[in-house]
Amino acid sequence: MLVVMRRDAGKEQIEAVISELEAKGYKARPIPGGDRVSIAVLFNKEPVDSTWVQELPGVKEAITVTRPFKLVSRETKPEDTVVSVGGVKIGNQGMVIIAGPCAIESEDQAMVIAEQVKAAGAEIFRGGAFKPRTSPYSFQGLGEAGLKILEKVRQTTGMPVVTEVMDLVCFDMVEAYADIVQIGTRNMQNFSLLRRAGQSKRPVLLKRGMSATVEEWLMAAEYIMAEGNPNVILCERGVRTFVRHSRNTLDFSAVPVVQRESHLPIIVDPSHAAGFRDQVMPLARAAAAVSAHGVMVEVHNEPEKARSDGVQSLYPQQFEVLCKQMRAIYDVFQTTERLK
Amino acid sequence: MLVVMRRDAGKEQIEAVISELEAKGYKARPIPGGDRVSIAVLFNKEPVDSTWVQELPGVKEAITVTRPFKLVSRETKPEDTVVSVGGVKIGNQGMVIIAGPCAIESEDQAMVIAEQVKAAGAEIFRGGAFKPRTSPYSFQGLGEAGLKILEKVRQTTGMPVVTEVMDLVCFDMVEAYADIVQIGTRNMQNFSLLRRAGQSKRPVLLKRGMSATVEEWLMAAEYIMAEGNPNVILCERGVRTFVRHSRNTLDFSAVPVVQRESHLPIIVDPSHAAGFRDQVMPLARAAAAVSAHGVMVEVHNEPEKARSDGVQSLYPQQFEVLCKQMRAIYDVFQTTERLK
Amino acid sequence: MLVVMRRDAGKEQIEAVISELEAKGYKARPIPGGDRVSIAVLFNKEPVDSTWVQELPGVKEAITVTRPFKLVSRETKPEDTVVSVGGVKIGNQGMVIIAGPCAIESEDQAMVIAEQVKAAGAEIFRGGAFKPRTSPYSFQGLGEAGLKILEKVRQTTGMPVVTEVMDLVCFDMVEAYADIVQIGTRNMQNFSLLRRAGQSKRPVLLKRGMSATVEEWLMAAEYIMAEGNPNVILCERGVRTFVRHSRNTLDFSAVPVVQRESHLPIIVDPSHAAGFRDQVMPLARAAAAVSAHGVMVEVHNEPEKARSDGVQSLYPQQFEVLCKQMRAIYDVFQTTERLK
Amino acid sequence: MLVVMRRDAGKEQIEAVISELEAKGYKARPIPGGDRVSIAVLFNKEPVDSTWVQELPGVKEAITVTRPFKLVSRETKPEDTVVSVGGVKIGNQGMVIIAGPCAIESEDQAMVIAEQVKAAGAEIFRGGAFKPRTSPYSFQGLGEAGLKILEKVRQTTGMPVVTEVMDLVCFDMVEAYADIVQIGTRNMQNFSLLRRAGQSKRPVLLKRGMSATVEEWLMAAEYIMAEGNPNVILCERGVRTFVRHSRNTLDFSAVPVVQRESHLPIIVDPSHAAGFRDQVMPLARAAAAVSAHGVMVEVHNEPEKARSDGVQSLYPQQFEVLCKQMRAIYDVFQTTERLK
Repeated sequence: MLVVMRRDAGKEQIEAVISELEAKGYKARPIPGGDRVSIAVLFNKEPVDSTWVQELPGVKEAITVTRPFKLVSRETKPEDTVVSVGGVKIGNQGMVIIAGPCAIESEDQAMVIAEQVKAAGAEIFRGGAFKPRTSPYSFQGLGEAGLKILEKVRQTTGMPVVTEVMDLVCFDMVEAYADIVQIGTRNMQNFSLLRRAGQSKRPVLLKRGMSATVEEWLMAAEYIMAEGNPNVILCERGVRTFVRHSRNTLDFSAVPVVQRESHLPIIVDPSHAAGFRDQVMPLARAAAAVSAHGVMVEVHNEPEKARSDGVQSLYPQQFEVLCKQMRAIYDVFQTTERLK
Repeated sequence: MLVVMRRDAGKEQIEAVISELEAKGYKARPIPGGDRVSIAVLFNKEPVDSTWVQELPGVKEAITVTRPFKLVSRETKPEDTVVSVGGVKIGNQGMVIIAGPCAIESEDQAMVIAEQVKAAGAEIFRGGAFKPRTSPYSFQGLGEAGLKILEKVRQTTGMPVVTEVMDLVCFDMVEAYADIVQIGTRNMQNFSLLRRAGQSKRPVLLKRGMSATVEEWLMAAEYIMAEGNPNVILCERGVRTFVRHSRNTLDFSAVPVVQRESHLPIIVDPSHAAGFRDQVMPLARAAAAVSAHGVMVEVHNEPEKARSDGVQSLYPQQFEVLCKQMRAIYDVFQTTERLK
Repeated sequence: MLVVMRRDAGKEQIEAVISELEAKGYKARPIPGGDRVSIAVLFNKEPVDSTWVQELPGVKEAITVTRPFKLVSRETKPEDTVVSVGGVKIGNQGMVIIAGPCAIESEDQAMVIAEQVKAAGAEIFRGGAFKPRTSPYSFQGLGEAGLKILEKVRQTTGMPVVTEVMDLVCFDMVEAYADIVQIGTRNMQNFSLLRRAGQSKRPVLLKRGMSATVEEWLMAAEYIMAEGNPNVILCERGVRTFVRHSRNTLDFSAVPVVQRESHLPIIVDPSHAAGFRDQVMPLARAAAAVSAHGVMVEVHNEPEKARSDGVQSLYPQQFEVLCKQMRAIYDVFQTTERLK
Repeated sequence: MLVVMRRDAGKEQIEAVISELEAKGYKARPIPGGDRVSIAVLFNKEPVDSTWVQELPGVKEAITVTRPFKLVSRETKPEDTVVSVGGVKIGNQGMVIIAGPCAIESEDQAMVIAEQVKAAGAEIFRGGAFKPRTSPYSFQGLGEAGLKILEKVRQTTGMPVVTEVMDLVCFDMVEAYADIVQIGTRNMQNFSLLRRAGQSKRPVLLKRGMSATVEEWLMAAEYIMAEGNPNVILCERGVRTFVRHSRNTLDFSAVPVVQRESHLPIIVDPSHAAGFRDQVMPLARAAAAVSAHGVMVEVHNEPEKARSDGVQSLYPQQFEVLCKQMRAIYDVFQTTERLK
């Protein structure tokens, strides 16, 4: 930590800050600057809580230097984490395509879409059985019936399935059916749910909160890892901004930043970010271009009849074209020299 | 709903949209405009799902007119809701002051602060027993031991207590001790928790999500009311913006907007919005000036030793001055003519 | 500046950074921390450009400590600046009320409103002669004819007038008529205009940019002061956020933050922040409650016929009530003990 | 326009709104809905000013339907605009790469970089002679000397040059040297400058404002086109959000949205959006993937010695790799079927 003193801080104030820090067991050293003195805290093993320091007389601000991440940090584990599920590898091993409808609506709907996306190139199937909806009066998903349909999709197509878990009560049930358990954007800081996910044997797909910083997001992953589950897949899905032409704004910079800070794989969900079908294809291609480890795309055979998110679901033929485009873009890096 | 057609939409496209709408049982009527035709959907009893409409050929956009709120809406219930708890009334009956530490740390700490804030003018005591923390390594609250201290505060001081509930599993326990159950900003769209709160006999203090629109916030309250609990108190606590000099940006406009749209009481939490003590006092006074139904302020007898949020907690002497200022400001409206 | 090294940075990397810094004439000293080494730059007279440092091998980040402000900083000039104009003092001398229509539309309109706002308690008259409008097809103001009307308002009512200047070409003209020259939110970083304003003899009212940080805003004021004009009045007018129920979100925290960082007076414009009349009154009262040095409010005698911003303009009777409320709130601080 | 009445609006209120509208010459027709009546305004040739309508008794809100765009709209001109400059075509004719240093620092620096970027594949050279800087104490550019260097770059390399114009006073000078005149993000709503640019014979590169909506941005382009200059190139450069790991957040959705709404070409500036070199390459590739008409990238032969923006400037070797990657990605669309 670096404690920045006010320009007019006197010698006693500086010494008092040092005394207080040392009384707490820290080693503190003054650093005279151009127009003010700063005080460095040395050899601390944990992040120093800066709040009380900011209150001491003469202190202008306290800047935290030690990062709060432990297990998720690339500084702790330099090599990439690769999550294996049903034979599919997510991490630095090519780009994984996850696709399917927003919600499981019926066995027919799920099976038709699953066959189509598999044929087009998807490796993992997505579909919601429990749906978080802004309105209590909207379709909330089929629940366990939906999970059983997902199981059937896996048995029939061989694709692993990912589906969202909304609360502690239904976690066991979701876990029993799903290959990957998804924690949605609204639950990114539902810490009880994160802890439970950390005790699961299933890989966890952790969506970024709608207004979460990358640091908060990685700390949410830290909750999961701290409970013993190393298989966390991060999913960037857009953040809330003043922009009104899309549902959210996809933060593509988060991909290289996460890849630098953490060893965990990161995929992109362009469907929820965009909210409109005609933006989904370019954003999905962009996800390939920024070297995300995968994408998750909503596809529906009859989007105009979908019970949720129809307007952002791709038609199967669009998805087929998109898969070719994404693979071709991703392959660019095999044929051109890669430089950081 | 109003369907806006593209400028170049032909007669057949317009008729096709009308046919599709009428096939779904809606009454649709074309409205020729200056440079394009729009189509109005009439007599619909529920909001029309606009997503499939936006996909029809020739459609530029679909604008939803019917509001999704039912129970929370002032159009449904014009008179103000007043929530009564332990003799205190929250709603259009003066300004209620809630105060206490961020977290319950010990019986001594809680009792000392409770006596101080009561003497200064607080009517309800706040204090966290379960703390949502960004890091799994931070202090997470005393749990049930904290709740028991809260009970003792109520018995000793007579003040009702409000405390946060973080998940379904501990809901029964929190409910057994608390007079008001708080749902925090990170759980505003934890729909399972909202439903459970709707089945509670306790009033619910619902904090606004960090990046929630007023509409989403009111829909979260709708989840609670739809389960049968009419006693919801809304709490504005700042939204996330690009601004860096405060932890969040307090959205004071939300107060008159909520008071116009809904009959539910709305209070303001300046402490979490500001994040720094020297901003808390002016923001709390501003809450009185915008006619919020109450404020919730963090106070600590030794902020520099607080285990969380110390830097934004007021000293008891500051709180005492603040209470006088807030009451005096609120009284301005008794002595000057009030105009909307 | 503090250079934070990567956890795995080796001794040579650390020494190389120190060498590079010392080669540029800085004094650098290593600071061993809990999990990494930092390097402090000492005795620098100017902010260190951190960009090249961030590129050196082993460097994780570079944190700037020295503030870029000079003339605007309270550390440079501890006492409050009070701007005097036509007998009115803006600064720590009570709350100044500025009012008038968005745009000057005719002599009649201006004179009627001026008499009304003066009677209600306004001390300075506002009105636009040159209007920045999003659309080139909207009313752009009366230009010099509008300035002449403002002059007449001053002569008749004795109130000083403030009006916006939009470009270098019309600066001389505006300056000849106005008592205070306003630089609008869209021009906050129009650096040529800022320099010109710095050469003016008139006080400058500098609105905060729609997405400017307080630091950028103060640096814009620094441009004006650096050219020799010490009379800058800052005006908070709301920032752009995801919120849709108001035009912008008023950032009330900016008031105490600016008052701590700078000696310049700061006023609040609730009209442009809100965008809707029913939010203007509570926000204006809040401005008094946070101890702003003044407010600037749009008032129109016939808002429904206004050529711009009618929907956010107060009726004269509302303004009259508001003035009483604001004065009463401001007076709270004369009768209760003021604590920081 | 659609006027939405309150649920409790009575028959007289509805009729009064219709009367007022018809008194202004509009044709208005009531539309009964599920829980309220709306009133449609028909056959209006211009957008209706909604502000006064919102004030009428019984009115809940007024929704504008007619778009304010005229000349920039694809509805007005369906075919793509292609801007030709010095033999380079910007618009739907492949992806144009613009590159060069942030600021022109010397003839040597400019010539070295120009030769390097040309060899790598750039078609247009960029470089600032007048630099908008947050601080008045930062390097402000070489001014006319810089423009002369740009002229020499053009003469020597044959590449057209683009450079920023900051104000009305220096417009003639910049126009005399530049092939494309750039209006920067801080000047996007400097309406006097936009008008002047509209009178120029030079194509104008119009950067998006830091917090501008696409609508405001297109209206800024409308200012230029309304003065007679049809050659406007839009440049997305990131918007300000709560995100801190990048300087701004690149809004890639804006590319398909602008391409749908307008016929004007749109390019992407990943350098200013990112602010850090290691984010620039993935974002630039993403610009190719979303089918932007071009990119503008900062390149410096010695970034660590650059007088501005060094930390976000690519090394020439990185740029060379990037050009190959971008071209390969763009070519994906020649070899796979393109679907909207």
